Formats: sequence, structure tokens, C-alpha cells
Amino acid sequence: MRKTTPLRSDIAWSTADAIGVHGYDLCQDLMGEVNFGDMAFLSVTGRLPNAGESRLFNAILVTLVEHGIVPSTLATRLTYAGAPESMQGAVAAGLLGLGSVFVGSTEGSAKMLAAAIPNGSNIDAATLPSLARAIVLQHRSEKRFVPGLGHPIHKPADPRTTRLFALAQQTGFHGSYVALMQCVSETASTEYGRPLPINATGAIGALCCEMGLSWNVSRGLGVMARAVGLVGHVLEEARQPLSMELWHRTEDEATAHSRGKLRSGDG
Amino acid sequence: MRKTTPLRSDIAWSTADAIGVHGYDLCQDLMGEVNFGDMAFLSVTGRLPNAGESRLFNAILVTLVEHGIVPSTLATRLTYAGAPESMQGAVAAGLLGLGSVFVGSTEGSAKMLAAAIPNGSNIDAATLPSLARAIVLQHRSEKRFVPGLGHPIHKPADPRTTRLFALAQQTGFHGSYVALMQCVSETASTEYGRPLPINATGAIGALCCEMGLSWNVSRGLGVMARAVGLVGHVLEEARQPLSMELWHRTEDEATAHSRGKLRSGDG
Amino acid sequence: MRKTTPLRSDIAWSTADAIGVHGYDLCQDLMGEVNFGDMAFLSVTGRLPNAGESRLFNAILVTLVEHGIVPSTLATRLTYAGAPESMQGAVAAGLLGLGSVFVGSTEGSAKMLAAAIPNGSNIDAATLPSLARAIVLQHRSEKRFVPGLGHPIHKPADPRTTRLFALAQQTGFHGSYVALMQCVSETASTEYGRPLPINATGAIGALCCEMGLSWNVSRGLGVMARAVGLVGHVLEEARQPLSMELWHRTEDEATAHSRGKLRSGDG
Amino acid sequence: MRKTTPLRSDIAWSTADAIGVHGYDLCQDLMGEVNFGDMAFLSVTGRLPNAGESRLFNAILVTLVEHGIVPSTLATRLTYAGAPESMQGAVAAGLLGLGSVFVGSTEGSAKMLAAAIPNGSNIDAATLPSLARAIVLQHRSEKRFVPGLGHPIHKPADPRTTRLFALAQQTGFHGSYVALMQCVSETASTEYGRPLPINATGAIGALCCEMGLSWNVSRGLGVMARAVGLVGHVLEEARQPLSMELWHRTEDEATAHSRGKLRSGDG
Repeated sequence: MRKTTPLRSDIAWSTADAIGVHGYDLCQDLMGEVNFGDMAFLSVTGRLPNAGESRLFNAILVTLVEHGIVPSTLATRLTYAGAPESMQGAVAAGLLGLGSVFVGSTEGSAKMLAAAIPNGSNIDAATLPSLARAIVLQHRSEKRFVPGLGHPIHKPADPRTTRLFALAQQTGFHGSYVALMQCVSETASTEYGRPLPINATGAIGALCCEMGLSWNVSRGLGVMARAVGLVGHVLEEARQPLSMELWHRTEDEATAHSRGKLRSGDG
Repeated sequence: MRKTTPLRSDIAWSTADAIGVHGYDLCQDLMGEVNFGDMAFLSVTGRLPNAGESRLFNAILVTLVEHGIVPSTLATRLTYAGAPESMQGAVAAGLLGLGSVFVGSTEGSAKMLAAAIPNGSNIDAATLPSLARAIVLQHRSEKRFVPGLGHPIHKPADPRTTRLFALAQQTGFHGSYVALMQCVSETASTEYGRPLPINATGAIGALCCEMGLSWNVSRGLGVMARAVGLVGHVLEEARQPLSMELWHRTEDEATAHSRGKLRSGDG
Repeated sequence: MRKTTPLRSDIAWSTADAIGVHGYDLCQDLMGEVNFGDMAFLSVTGRLPNAGESRLFNAILVTLVEHGIVPSTLATRLTYAGAPESMQGAVAAGLLGLGSVFVGSTEGSAKMLAAAIPNGSNIDAATLPSLARAIVLQHRSEKRFVPGLGHPIHKPADPRTTRLFALAQQTGFHGSYVALMQCVSETASTEYGRPLPINATGAIGALCCEMGLSWNVSRGLGVMARAVGLVGHVLEEARQPLSMELWHRTEDEATAHSRGKLRSGDG
Repeated sequence: MRKTTPLRSDIAWSTADAIGVHGYDLCQDLMGEVNFGDMAFLSVTGRLPNAGESRLFNAILVTLVEHGIVPSTLATRLTYAGAPESMQGAVAAGLLGLGSVFVGSTEGSAKMLAAAIPNGSNIDAATLPSLARAIVLQHRSEKRFVPGLGHPIHKPADPRTTRLFALAQQTGFHGSYVALMQCVSETASTEYGRPLPINATGAIGALCCEMGLSWNVSRGLGVMARAVGLVGHVLEEARQPLSMELWHRTEDEATAHSRGKLRSGDG
């Protein structure tokens, strides 16, 4: 006989006349009292943010909502073209591309920095160059990219990084993790002989560490924020579609070389 | 030869040193300046909200983030148990259940109210009872539920509705659509002989109409907000899992009657 | 106190040394004994097919596996580009586009035919023209397309339909539903003044009716078959990618008109 | 100016009167001529199987279709309960759980075996024990499970493995990879001091190597096959639901400890 263990969730409860979320009364304490970003902070940490946390956390989410036409927004729009009755399916399709190549790199840089400076302690700035050098050399020896560095479009600096680090200064979250990430960027640029600035996911990885958020939270922030942006792309596709044209063009070009050709040579 | 049409998107653009979103400079105008809910408003309307819109819109999103253990949060947690390396997949799985039965009813009530009062015009309150009666009778004759009414747990009133309508008063969005929805609720309760209060999705459908948001926007709000809540459930499942126990219990019970039985009678 | 009801599933069970699927011993009766299409038939009907059913059902699935570059295969490939570690996510993204516009029309024609000839009874061929006329006129009056007719590429006939109906003749499934669908096609072509041949989803809808499969089964066949084809597209994208080029081209064209432009006029 | 590269796909093309799939005429060469499993083989390899390949490949797919109530089938059923209008969404939700914990282990064992015996060459049986020992010790030193070994229910042997290896003997695919996998199982059982038999995913990983299929194909087979099984679970949920009961029971139990409790102590 299998021994059962209890099922338990501490996130929320409902009664006839109230809903509790992480110990707050949803209707009295949260609705109309906190903004959507603060509610997201509550969802991932179990508590409400203070003023500085609220400003920086909202800014991080705002950063990740939208980057225009990218593979995930195209996947959402192409899915909507086939199933316009199912907005949730179109948004889900776009989210599924937020893996190791895009957005997911937030997780990589957060993990990397947290491993180098465990326990969130502020450390002696003099040790940063050797920590950074160890990180870069290890990635190089394993032929892996250092997560959070470089961007195909944003050069020589990612403007989102510049802004996020300025906000971190204003809110008191510009500490050792940010300094280490900057040191990693400089070391990697020297080592590889080309500019490797900190991109937005690298900056956000560092700021998650500063705020004490675990690396899996950092992955979640991209998922939350892009869900918002993808709804916007569904709405635009509904009034100004591009999917059908994109389909026909791609089909025409990609299969022209073989059209009508069969193994037997006839057809 | 197929005639091509141009591809065009007006949501966002990127250059080496800037990102534009609906005509705003992402880094200067939005990051650190607007909260995540205002950014969501920008995504669905193409403009930033005024103070009243911001308060009500943020409150609507906060309302929809979390309702504890429901089918979609269970789908997310069960998916995470099989693919913990893919948070985006777990969140996507939960979103896929936001269809016609749950959350999607926001869309139904928004459509119903917008059809009854087109053009968003404020109408003579004296006409509301006959509009409400027509709506209820039509749904009854087609054996369809009136969307946005009733709740299995929240009785006799949904506390979220009470709070949302109070916020609508405070922000100037308590107009004809809210009044019509209330009238529909009263008429339906009389007609069916049992209390059918306005639930949260019915209230939100009415408020979307008041704010001039189209019905497909109302569906999108649930998708956005639940994406936030589902990330919270992934994080709880990671530290305090319930999926494996739920699986084994369900399997034990659901297949006990047939275990070991084959058509041939042996086994 | 809520009254609980038992949980029950009749599909499959496991013991230490056997697995039962719809009453068959998976290892002894099914593996190596039946092909994948017959197993799919077992999954949707709870029994194994006879020889004629097996031939026609496998042919239907084979028909639906692949149609080259279409919106769903593009969604899969774009998703894979972002999350190559998650093949299941890429396939899921493609499946999500199998809604009311594509593939889902199988369901529409199956429903339409089953409603016109309930109980699967063979009916007097003389009544078909009036049944067909009623169907076409009703759709026309509601300004809806008749499901299962017409194709943008396959003209004047869909070659898959021709082949499926020939196989239906050979296997004894060319009955009243096929005849009605043909009559609907002729009537609609006359009524609308242009050729509206039966497309593959219309043919499959009719054949599902002939085989006694319910309309929701017909939707499922497309989902099953396309899952197979989408895996093939993931594998091709891995060795011969087109997603990144498609992304960059689309982004370049779709945002060129606005790049660098801000509301304030600067930038 | 970005240099464009051509878009190209070699899978399928369409003309007005024909569809080509991997060089075959879909209607003439495939529909009615090959079964669904052979079509799947064509999708992943670009050619049709010979008789032995067909038998073994179909058997592998049949093996993976169904394992009853598991996390992925529950995710599908819970999703269907919320969005019954979107069968594709329910199936997609179930597929999303086919990650590193379940099914995905096929990929792990295929990778492991292919790395140990590159190029598919038959090797001297005398070298297998040392290869197996190296594999087991490396996994142990990295504190990782050896993929493809052990099963919580199927003991002391997985009956699917026994059957698959018998079919491999009959079809000529019982070579070095199978022998190495068996040797790994014996070595691991000795090393860990408990029986670690080859489970179905381990057997399938070995057979994929024998058939010359790459490791990412092996992951795809599980996705294809489970899509078929998940459609069956949707259909059962539609006629004999368990999701709503499962939801209410879980909610009742998981939140009872906190219901009505707020931070402030009131409520």
C-alpha cells in the first residue's frame, strides 16, 4: 500500500465572501491598492515590495514586455491566423519560444553571478577582477558563451542596460552583482578582442541577484512580461494581419526548387 | 504570379541605441516611469492610461492574477513535474485552459453588453430593464447561460465584483454598461428563481466596455494576469511539490477497477 | 461538506509486469502486432479496426501528416529556434494553430453531415439534393462558408479527396455521407457561381461519418497526424534552419516605416 | 545592409493537382499504400522503411502511445475542462510535460550509447563491460542517474523492454547498442546494489541507435506517440470527466490549513 502525503498550497484560498493571496485580502488589500507589477512581486516572493523594490521590479518587467517582431511574436501571430477563436493558444505558442536562446539567458547570468558570490554578501571590490577572469576563462575553455553579453542590434551598448543600472543606483540595488557583471563584460571584451557589452538579460540577471530573487524567478519574469506583449501582437494581427502573406511568401520561396519533382522523375 | 502585399507592424522598432514602443522611447519614457499595468494598457490600446484608467486597469489585472488551486494551476504544476527545465512550457500549459469555461467568460459578457449598447453611448436608464430582459430571455430560449453570472463558491455576492464596482465609482467608470450588467443579474435571478450575482468576469466584461476596450482585449487581460500567477505556482511546485502525489493517488483510484483485467479474461 | 464522486479511467492500467490498454495486453497483443494507425484507431474508439477500417483510417492519417510550409509548421520552426532544448514545446506551438481556420474544418463538415443524416442510416439517394440545398442555403443566409469546400491551391479538384473517395469505394465506406458531401459541393458551386470542390478536410469529415466516428474524433485525427509532421519540421529546422532569416527579413520590412520615430518627433 | 540567405525546405510541395512529400506523390505512393507508422518513419528519415524497420518502428510508436493516468494525461484533461472548444490546446498542454523527467529520457540513453559507440559500428563484445563500467562510474561521480534504467512500477523487468528486444531479434536490430545497454544495466545494478532494469525509454534509445536514428529523433517519437494517446484522453474526459472532481478535492485539501486566515489575524 502506497503511503499518501498531504497536498498543500500556500498561495491562495477562497471562501464565500473573501479570497486570500499570500495572506492578503485580495479585495481589500490588493485590488486598487497595488499595481500589477507589485502583484507580480507578491506572486514570486510571497510579500509586497517596498518603494525601491517596486520601482526597479516594475522597470524590469516593463523592459521585457516588447521587442517588436521577433520569433516568438511571429509564432503567436501565425498561430492566431489558424485558431483566432483561441487567444490563449496564440499567446502560449509565443511563450514556448522563450527558451535557452532568447530571454532564458536571464537565468544563465543570474545563476553564474549567484554561484560566484553566494549568500548575497557584499564583497571586497578588489576581488571582482579575479572572479570575473575565472568566469570568462571557464566559459571559454568549455566553448560556451558567457550569458548576458553581446547583442546583434544594440551596439556598442544596450540602452536598456544603461537605464536599468541607473535605476539600480537610484533604488539602492547597484551592488556587488552589478559590479561583477560589469567586470565580466570588460574581461570578456578583452579576452575575445571585440566589444561584449552587457545586454538586457544580463543586466536583469544581475539585478535579480541584487534583489535576492532566485535564478528561476528571473526566468519567470520574461515569461510574465512577454505574455503581456504577445497579447498586443494578437490584437494587431487581428486588425492588421501579416501571417498569411508571410506564409505564402515563405512557401513560394522555400519549395520552388522542388515543386512538381518526384523520385521517379515524372510528375 | 502571386501579388505580394507589404508586411507591417506598428508596435515596436529597434535601432543600435534605442527601442520604440508605440511611439515611446522604451528606455527614457517607460522604464522607471510607468508601472507594469500601465505598460499592459499601452500594449492593448497603443497609448498610456490617464490616472483613473491606470487605477482601474491595474485593479482588473490584480483581480485576475490568482485564484489558488484551479484546473489551470494544476495543469501548470503537472507539466512542470515532467519538464522542470522548461518554465515557459509549464506556464503555457496553464494558459491553454483559459477557454470558454473559465476566464473566457469575460469575453462573453463584454460582447453581450457591447451588442446591447453599441458605440459606448450613455443611454436612458429607463431603457435598461427592457434591454436586460431581452438578453436574459434570448439566452434562456437558446438554453445558454448568461455569461458573467453566478459562482460556485462566492455567494451571495462575488467580493471582487463589489470591490471593482466601488473602484469604478471612484474612477468615473460606473456608467451604462455596469448598470445594464446589474440589471441583467437581477432579471436573471428573478427569471431562474435563484440568486445569480455578477461574478468577477462579468464585472470585468462590463468595465472593459466602460473603458472602451474591445471584447478581445478583455480575453487578453485574463491571459496576461494568469501568466503572472502561473509563474508563482511553478515556483511553489519547485519548492513544495504536489504533482507527483496527485498523480499517484489519481492513478491508484481511477484504474483500480480494471487493473490486471484483459479482454481474454486472463492476466 | 462537498460530496465526492469517484475518479475513473478505462483507458489503461499498469502492474509490475503488464500494461493493459483498452483491455489488450500492450506487450503481447499490440506491440509488433498492430501498426501505429491501428493503435490510433484503438485510442479513439476503444477497439481494434477490421481490415477495411485499418486501410482507410491509416490513409486518412497519412493524408494529414504533411502539407509543407504552412502557418503551423512555421510556428513550430520559429519556436524551436528560441528553445531548441524543448522539442515538445516546438511541436505543441505548431499544434496550437490547428483551430477553426485550418484542419479544424474537418470537425465542421463532420458535424454538418451528421446533423443532416442522424443515426448513420443509409437514406434514399433521391432525398440528397434537397438536404444539400438546405445546407447550402442555410450557410449562405448566415453568411458562413460551407465547411470542407474549396482550396486556394488545389483546383479544380483536391487530389487527396479523389484518392480518399477511391479508397472508400475499395473498403466499403462510400455511402450516404460521401454522396451528400458531393451533392453539397455541386449545389454550392452552382449557387455561388464558382467551382467549390470538396477539399481534404471535407472528405475526411464525410469518411469519419461513414466510419461512425464522432465529430470530435475527426478534429483529433488532424492533431495526431500533424504532430508527426511537425517533428519532421523540427528535425529539418535543426539541420537546415530558416527561422532566423525569416525573422530578420520580416523585422526589417515590417518596422522600416517607423524605425527611429518617436511621438515627440525626435530620436 | 543585411545580406539575405535563401529560404529552403525539402519536405513537401503542393501544386494544383499533386502534393509531394520527400519525393513521393502523397496521393499515389503513400495514401492507402503505407501505414501511419511508415509515414512517421518517412517524416523523420526522409525515406520509407524496409519490412524489418517498419515492424520495429511501428512497435516502438505503439509502445509509447499510452501509459494511462500520468501527469501529462492529467494536464490534458484539466485543460480540456477549461477550453473544451480547443482540442488542440488540450493535447498541446499534455505534450508540454514530455521533458527531461518522463519520455525525454529516451534522448538521454540514445545520446549516451551513441557517444560510447560512435559511427554505429559493430564492436567486439569483449569491450562492452569496460564501456559499460566507464558509463556507470562517470554518471555516479557526477551524481546523475544513468538514463533508461529503473521504473517505479515495472519490476524486476519492464515488460515493454522484454518485448522490444525480442522484436529487435526478429527484425535484425539486436546489435552492439542493445548489448551495451544490457551491460550498463547489469553494471549499474551491481554498483548501486539494487535491481536497475532497462525501462522502455532505455530500450527505445538503444533501438534508435541500432536503426541509425539520431538522438533528437528518439525524443520526437515520444512526442508523436503521446499526441495519439492524449487525443484518446480528451475523448474520455468529454464522456466521463474526472477533472472537476480532481480540482475540487485538491483545492479542498491543499488550502484547508489557511482558509480564512489573513496576515492581520482577522478574516
